[in-house]
Amino acid sequence: MFSVLATDSQSSARLGRMDLAHGTVETPIFMPVGTQGSVKTLHPREVEELGAQIILGNTYHLWLRPGHELVRDFGGLHKFTTWDKPILTDSGGFQVWSLAKLRKITEEGVRFNNHLDGSKMLLTPELSMEIQASLGSDIAMLFDECPPYPCDKDYAAKSLALTTRWARRCKAWTEKHQPRSGDGVQRHFGIVQGSIYADLREQSARELVDIGFDGYAVGGVSVGEPEEEMFRAIENAVPFLPHDKPRYAMGLGTPPQILEMIARGVDMFDCVMPTRVARHGMAFTLDGPIQIKNKVHERDERPLCETSPPHVAPFSRAYLRHLFRAGEILALRLLSYHNLHFYLRLVAGARQAIAAGNFLAFKDSFIRRYTQTDPT
Amino acid sequence: MFSVLATDSQSSARLGRMDLAHGTVETPIFMPVGTQGSVKTLHPREVEELGAQIILGNTYHLWLRPGHELVRDFGGLHKFTTWDKPILTDSGGFQVWSLAKLRKITEEGVRFNNHLDGSKMLLTPELSMEIQASLGSDIAMLFDECPPYPCDKDYAAKSLALTTRWARRCKAWTEKHQPRSGDGVQRHFGIVQGSIYADLREQSARELVDIGFDGYAVGGVSVGEPEEEMFRAIENAVPFLPHDKPRYAMGLGTPPQILEMIARGVDMFDCVMPTRVARHGMAFTLDGPIQIKNKVHERDERPLCETSPPHVAPFSRAYLRHLFRAGEILALRLLSYHNLHFYLRLVAGARQAIAAGNFLAFKDSFIRRYTQTDPT
Ligand SMILES: [Zn+2]
Ligand SMILES: [Zn+2]
Repeated sequence: MFSVLATDSQSSARLGRMDLAHGTVETPIFMPVGTQGSVKTLHPREVEELGAQIILGNTYHLWLRPGHELVRDFGGLHKFTTWDKPILTDSGGFQVWSLAKLRKITEEGVRFNNHLDGSKMLLTPELSMEIQASLGSDIAMLFDECPPYPCDKDYAAKSLALTTRWARRCKAWTEKHQPRSGDGVQRHFGIVQGSIYADLREQSARELVDIGFDGYAVGGVSVGEPEEEMFRAIENAVPFLPHDKPRYAMGLGTPPQILEMIARGVDMFDCVMPTRVARHGMAFTLDGPIQIKNKVHERDERPLCETSPPHVAPFSRAYLRHLFRAGEILALRLLSYHNLHFYLRLVAGARQAIAAGNFLAFKDSFIRRYTQTDPT
Repeated sequence: MFSVLATDSQSSARLGRMDLAHGTVETPIFMPVGTQGSVKTLHPREVEELGAQIILGNTYHLWLRPGHELVRDFGGLHKFTTWDKPILTDSGGFQVWSLAKLRKITEEGVRFNNHLDGSKMLLTPELSMEIQASLGSDIAMLFDECPPYPCDKDYAAKSLALTTRWARRCKAWTEKHQPRSGDGVQRHFGIVQGSIYADLREQSARELVDIGFDGYAVGGVSVGEPEEEMFRAIENAVPFLPHDKPRYAMGLGTPPQILEMIARGVDMFDCVMPTRVARHGMAFTLDGPIQIKNKVHERDERPLCETSPPHVAPFSRAYLRHLFRAGEILALRLLSYHNLHFYLRLVAGARQAIAAGNFLAFKDSFIRRYTQTDPT
């Protein structure tokens, strides 16, 4: 399912290929987030045109609305949304921690009141796997507990132990039910927890690898911790993960962070940031992010960035600023498209550099220019 | 500039061709509305893909934001927005009547507080023409007073007389300044007023034709009057308009109304309805409008309509309903695209039927099916 095609001699970066039920994914890869069955503001054909190879769907959202039985009856998430390339679904856990109310964690699972109508619900490891099986994603994530930051070591250790027990239950469910994705099999990724504690990260990784999964994510990062803690969490987990399985850093990050993670041996990324900040007028450029609503762009004839694709390049910053100020939806579309293009181009550049043996030079040169100036 | 290519033997419908600075327009035509320099939710390349031949821009909105000098300095509205086909701009008058506060009409023009920040502004016939010249539209509309409905005959007569005096001032301004549109000349359309009074409509038409314009609009329709009054306003004006000039019914209408207007000799239409109702979940179908948010579409596997274009047809009503309920912008895009496609297909069908000599049969068959059932 996963092959490492090349490794960087000066860092832990690697070039890989992942064969999934709905197609092949080249790694390192960035996965645009299609929370509720739509990458926000974009048409699925545009997401293809952008060169996205795999997108993310959120189990919690789709479970609540329109419901996983409905999606299953429509032939799964691919058919329902008309996206025919690979999809990764998260376990629903993270949204339960971040959106739901009155959460109560027990051995069985997590009880909560949902954020839409306050109904009482229970999500268990088995139900998370069942929902993801109904969605028919190419990669399903295991149901874990994501401890908050900061978190004392005692809580982190107990939480990790629960996550491992839940991982065993998830594994048992998938072995029994053998979920499919289209004409192929669904793949399952474990999630390494352990907060900021190196020994707990090691323990979590070893326990999950012992159970055996198709890939491994590093969870509990990008939850408010300083950047160096985030890098350390990755560094504490990666050495204990198998070389021949994909590694996924969940919910990350800025363009420089993604390059730093690739250098540390991470293969897969997802983040809502490129589309979320786009909807607030922020666009990524090689010279760092710009805020298109700023007065300085009032008569700015330049496109957003010299890297802007044909879908966006014909528009001046002045026009984009006007659209934002006038509340026009086209503004949200164009910046979302541009930012995803920027991220997908970034990981494509990283792949090319690893293949060419000059990844560190690529990374340093990108970051130097990106952080050098404040282009407004 | 305008040629009538065929006339229907059983009605006043006609097939025509209008040669404008940015291209040729076949009539009868529907013009999507791009209020603030964007046809709401759509990319200009999508509006082209839809087969739109001419779109509308709103002088009032563009004057306030981003300002006509800025648009002029960017080479006009076509270059600023990247829309390179014909554009018609309204005079700004209608928005002053409908959006601005504390309006005061004098011989000079209309003073008001704008709806954005309440600043005091003055719009005169000369300024309206100057703004439209800066925007560089292919067709500029004359500045008129649009009386409310209902309106007593005395007011309607005084208003009409003012509109005629303003029309002379607009004409004087354009003769002096000879505004351009791209590499060609800007065309100017007069607006027939007179409310529901047949003799006033005749008087207004005769006075405007006497001054001489490139085309004539029927204004003061779709301002809350019953449908039969709307048809009568058209019937009262059309006989006094020249055969060899285009006729434009402003701000209309439903699909059956458009066919009825074509039968009465109207060549041009614009309406925000297809895109506005789309953003509220309403889609046009051959069996009448449907509300996609309704429960009945929860598991509806059908596309919106058998006429849906490839951009929309792959999506089930169930998926579109889900997107609406989830607040996804893609829903607004897909219904806007679909509804504009429906309108543009309707007028293309009318043109084809006029050419084939069976327009009345086409109209009656469309309206019979459209109004027969309540498809929810
Ligand atoms: Zn993120
Ligand atoms: Zn209308």
